[in-house]
Parts: sequence; structure tokens; C-alpha cells
Amino acid sequence: METERLARLCLATIAEPGRPELAAAVAEFGAEPVWDSLSRQVQETPLAARARRVSPEKLREQLRADRLRFVIPGDAEWPGRLSDLTGCEPVNRMSGEPLGLWVRGEGDLAALADGAVSIVGARASTNYGETVAADLAAELSQGGRSVASGGAYGIDAAAHRGCLAGRTPTICVLACGLDRPYPGGHRQLFDRIAEAGVLVSELPPGEHPTRMRFLARNRLIAALSRGTVLVEAALRSGARNTVTWANALGRLVMAVPGPVTSAASQTPHRLIREAEAILVSSSADVLELIAPLGSNLGARPEGERRFTDELAPEDLRVFELVPGRGGISVADLAIRAGLSLPECLAVLDRLAELELLEQNPRGEWQLLRRSRS
Amino acid sequence: METERLARLCLATIAEPGRPELAAAVAEFGAEPVWDSLSRQVQETPLAARARRVSPEKLREQLRADRLRFVIPGDAEWPGRLSDLTGCEPVNRMSGEPLGLWVRGEGDLAALADGAVSIVGARASTNYGETVAADLAAELSQGGRSVASGGAYGIDAAAHRGCLAGRTPTICVLACGLDRPYPGGHRQLFDRIAEAGVLVSELPPGEHPTRMRFLARNRLIAALSRGTVLVEAALRSGARNTVTWANALGRLVMAVPGPVTSAASQTPHRLIREAEAILVSSSADVLELIAPLGSNLGARPEGERRFTDELAPEDLRVFELVPGRGGISVADLAIRAGLSLPECLAVLDRLAELELLEQNPRGEWQLLRRSRS
Repeated sequence: METERLARLCLATIAEPGRPELAAAVAEFGAEPVWDSLSRQVQETPLAARARRVSPEKLREQLRADRLRFVIPGDAEWPGRLSDLTGCEPVNRMSGEPLGLWVRGEGDLAALADGAVSIVGARASTNYGETVAADLAAELSQGGRSVASGGAYGIDAAAHRGCLAGRTPTICVLACGLDRPYPGGHRQLFDRIAEAGVLVSELPPGEHPTRMRFLARNRLIAALSRGTVLVEAALRSGARNTVTWANALGRLVMAVPGPVTSAASQTPHRLIREAEAILVSSSADVLELIAPLGSNLGARPEGERRFTDELAPEDLRVFELVPGRGGISVADLAIRAGLSLPECLAVLDRLAELELLEQNPRGEWQLLRRSRS
Repeated sequence: METERLARLCLATIAEPGRPELAAAVAEFGAEPVWDSLSRQVQETPLAARARRVSPEKLREQLRADRLRFVIPGDAEWPGRLSDLTGCEPVNRMSGEPLGLWVRGEGDLAALADGAVSIVGARASTNYGETVAADLAAELSQGGRSVASGGAYGIDAAAHRGCLAGRTPTICVLACGLDRPYPGGHRQLFDRIAEAGVLVSELPPGEHPTRMRFLARNRLIAALSRGTVLVEAALRSGARNTVTWANALGRLVMAVPGPVTSAASQTPHRLIREAEAILVSSSADVLELIAPLGSNLGARPEGERRFTDELAPEDLRVFELVPGRGGISVADLAIRAGLSLPECLAVLDRLAELELLEQNPRGEWQLLRRSRS
């Protein structure tokens, strides 16, 4: 493992998420010098005490044992959008780009985050809210967009499940170590998410969630996605915090209305009324607000992979017919896209050249799995 | 009957509602000269032909027979707010203050319109929409505000019924003659409305509704009220037309959200999304947006009666405890208002002096019924 990654791994292991001081020090001096000075520090501070207990070798071993990877800024899999956290106004006295992220799962975080929409809401949700969240997520996923959420009961789980029903994998951002994802009742859901998507955390294995860690996690959900949709939240729900982060980051904030007789729709209604969120009632509304897939929202850091670039309509149509998992034959694709076989092959040529698709050993076409860093 | 009123009665009988030309001619030359020239006109025009068939005597007789009154600008019962229609941008090529209004019922149109909110929506409504409309109307009515609507099936009827359940009478604006109010299935509802509220129309007895007359009626609903609340309307519903008028008149436009899965909430959602309407989810939301009762919204024409003026909180509390129909004893009022008997009597003295309350023969206090013009 490179020294930079190892230093960040050690620092992220001892730091509380969202501490702007550590992030600022690393930005100024680099991760290695900061780690070196901390681990050799004579002066007794809580951080130094924790640093002395860290064994870099054990941390690396733990990654292998838990089948995790530690992704850092500059990696191909690092979502460039996270750098927006650096200049961002603090919320709950937290800010800063993460030092690194623990990631589990077969998905590519940067590729998934590229067009991602986050869907969040209350744990105390209604059938209505869960249905809307799941439908919205399924349609976005089917249209090639990943849905990010927090893995909680209620709206979060409905959003992940909806996304799993579409063709694009889902991003699940947790406030605890990925070895013991919380809540335990979602173990099966987390396993399914990891099959093609990603579980992401700013916390090392073994750590449990706390109130502050949930708040720090919310900033990642907001920062990773292009926009946040709030589906249901009562007046005092914590789900509003993600909206606050999305606003602080200049992300689009959307909210789904519901019956005015439902307490679970009170926060969406208030946000819409006070023009803090835009009313959305369908995935079409969301897509109209979010820039088209592949379009450039602000400067994109060099080297960040793009999920799709500006494809011709015909190419995009074929690309969107390729399932999120498994392959599809050329004949199938041609029929579904309404193209002749030669036309379809020409499109597939172009998509392969753009490194969007590849042929599997059975000759079927599938999404290109990117090599991991 | 004064000649001005008679001339307007004749003109209103032959004119189609919302014709800006006739309103402009009357504004420039006065009603009597316009009527004289029309009824003596030699040149054959449709309007002149209709004018020749009019018998002023018969029209007056008809008013008595149908127990209607014909109210004109300048009357104490004429809502000053209707003059906003004069300078208003035309909608559907209609504009202009009405030449006069046929009114039926025990209510005072100007007094009711003073604080009125209109609640409109689709005939094809859901249980949810009807419940919300009725609750909203009942709470506004209980708070001293009349609710105006169009007497149609669905949301309109729910709004009228809700208002009837409160203490302030309701305003029903129709697109046909008041002798045969449309729809016929609402005959009982219309009778109940007339007991303490008003039925209002720009059309003479005997006339049936047409598409254009519904549109002209919508402009009156919007103009009579301080703001319009749209409760339910599918994408192609006519209820949106009232919103267009409210916007053209600079009135507050509000909309109630609902389940995004409900087609009946599509227009409210679209209006909110496009910032053409403000989301409201309760009567408190509506009252927060609408200026307080008795406050002066723009210049109020001289002579227009005020429902309440700037009452002291204690006086307003007592006033609001007086039922819309029937009387209440001083003892009852004092107990409910949490006042001593002498305190309560002092308040009642002030309210009587302001011509807001009066004592009935049984010594109970009731709302002052204003003498009609």
C-alpha cells in the first residue's frame, strides 16, 4: 500500500468524521507528515493517545479480512464531487472532505456517484412514503442513475430496495464500521447492495454509530449526489439535516408532497412552502431538475471517470437497455432498440470504444467493470 | 328603483358577463345614457335587438318574485374589491367590473367578501380533497372568514358545506340565473347557503350556464376574495382558470398538496412547483398569508362597510364567540371568553357601538344584520 494511502488510513482510523481541523492540516501539510507527527507526538492528547495504539499492519490486514478497500482522494474511484466539502460552510461545526472512505461492494463509487440522486427520509415512514420512495428510486435506477441513501429503516430502505429493482446499483452511506453495518436488521439488504453497488463509510471497522456520526454521514450523502429528494419527515425528524447539508453544498434540494393530513409530510411541505426545496412528484420531475446524465455540472476533476459522456440518442438508447447485472445478446439489444443488427453492432462498437460496455466470455454485452485502485 | 340601478339592471340583463366593451362604455358615459341609446338604437345589432325586448317593469317584478336584489357599484353591499377588475389584464378576452349582481340570501355580500377566502377545485375530487376543503373552510369560517366558491359538485360543495359548519356564512357565485341555480342537485345546499350567506350571479333569472359564463364567474370568485386556495384539480381541470384570474388580479394564490399518486393533485403540485401558488397545508397557513381580518389591503372605497375593524384582542375574542346564526347570552359569552360579567358587558358595548353586534328581543347578542340597499 502506498505511504499516502496508509497515512490516510491511520488518520481516518483515529479521527472523528467531519473534523475540519484534521482535514485542514492534511490539506496544508500532507497526510504523511501529519500522521508522522501525530504518532510520534510526546504531548499527551486524546488524538495522540489513539494514534499510538494504531498498528498500520493490522489495519491493512483488517481491510483484507473484511473484504474492504480504502479509497482516497486522487483514486479513480474517488468521487470528485466530495471536494465541494472543503470550501463548504460548516453545519453542526462539521465540514471538510473525508480523509478516505472504507468501501465494500462490487460497484465503482465514482461511477455510481456521477449521476447519483439521494433519496432520504424518516424512519417513521408511511406506506405512501415508502411506495413513492421505492418507485422514484426504481425509475431513476432504470434510467441509469444510482440512488444514494443511508441504509436506515423506512424511507432509506425503500429507496435502496427501489434502486435494486432497477438496472443501476445503489450507494449506501453508513455511520459505522462496514464490518457490522447498522441497523443489524438490514444485514440481508446490505449484502444485496454490495453485490453490485457499494457500502461506504468514513468510519473504520468496529466503530458504532453515534448522533454526531449520523450527522457527519448525512453530509456525505448530500455531497456524493447531485441532488437530494426528501420523501417523508415529521417536523422534528433528523432527515432534515441531509437537506441542510445539500443546501450548504449548493446541491438541488427536492421534496415530495403528501397528504396534508399526514404528519410524515410536514417537513417536505414546510420546505416547499418556504422555497427551501422544489416540489417533485415523479422521477421525470427529478430528471428535469438534475442535469442530464453525462453533462458537466461545474468543473470535473481530471481523471474522474464518467459514467456516460454525451452519447448520441441512439447510443444512449442501446446503453440504457444493457442490464445493470449480467449480459444481453446483440440480437436482443437490436430488437429492443428497434435497430437492424449491423446498426446495433456499430453502436456497440462505439460504446465499447468509450469503455462503457464489454463482451463477456459468452459473447453477451455487459457494463464494463472498472478495475479497482 | 333609482334610474341608475334600473339602467344597470337592463344592461346586465342583455349583456354577456365579462364583456369589457359595455363596462367601458358605462364607465365613460354612465349607465343611463348607454341604456337609453341602446334601447332606442335604430341600427340592427344583436344587443339592440335584445334591448328592445327588455321590459324594465317586468325585471323589477321578477326580482320581487324570486326574492332577489340587484346590487350595483356604490351600494353599501357592493364589494369594493370588485373594482380591481376594471384595470385588470383580460383573461379569455374577458375583463371589467360587473354592471351589477343579482344577489339572494340573508347575508351581506360586502361584509362577507371583506375577509373572504375562495376555495375551489375539481368536480372530480377525491375523499381526501373534499375532507381537506371542508376542514379548511370550517376553520376559516369559525375564525370569522367567509369562504367563496362556485357551488359545483366536488371541492366547491365541500368548501360551502365546511363554511356552513363554521360561524361565518358562505358566498356562492353562480354562472346562471338565481331562480334556477345550477347544478339542480344542489338545490338544498343553495337554500341552506341563502339562509345566512349569499348566492351571487352576474346573470339574470332564466339564464343557464355556458362555458364562457363559467369562466366569467371564475373571475368573480377570484375578485371577491382576498386569496384563492386550489384544493384538487387534474391537469386539464377548469378549476385552474380561477387561479389564472387570481394571478391576474394580484390576489394570493394558494394550493393544497396531496399524494403524488393522485391525479387530482396534479395541478396543485404543478402550480406549487412552478411558484405560481404557495403551498398551504392548514387554515393557519392560509391565515398567515392572508392579511389579518380588518386590516386594510390597499385603499378601501369610502362607504364600504367593514366586517371588523382593528379590534382589541379581548374584543375580537368576544366577537368571535358570537355564533354566525342565532344569539348568545352575556353570561355564556363571559364564561367562554374568560371575562367577568362587567368586563364582558363593556366589550359588548364597544362591539355594539362599532355596529358589529346587536341584542335581539330575547336579550341575546347576535351579529348585526345590515339594512339592505
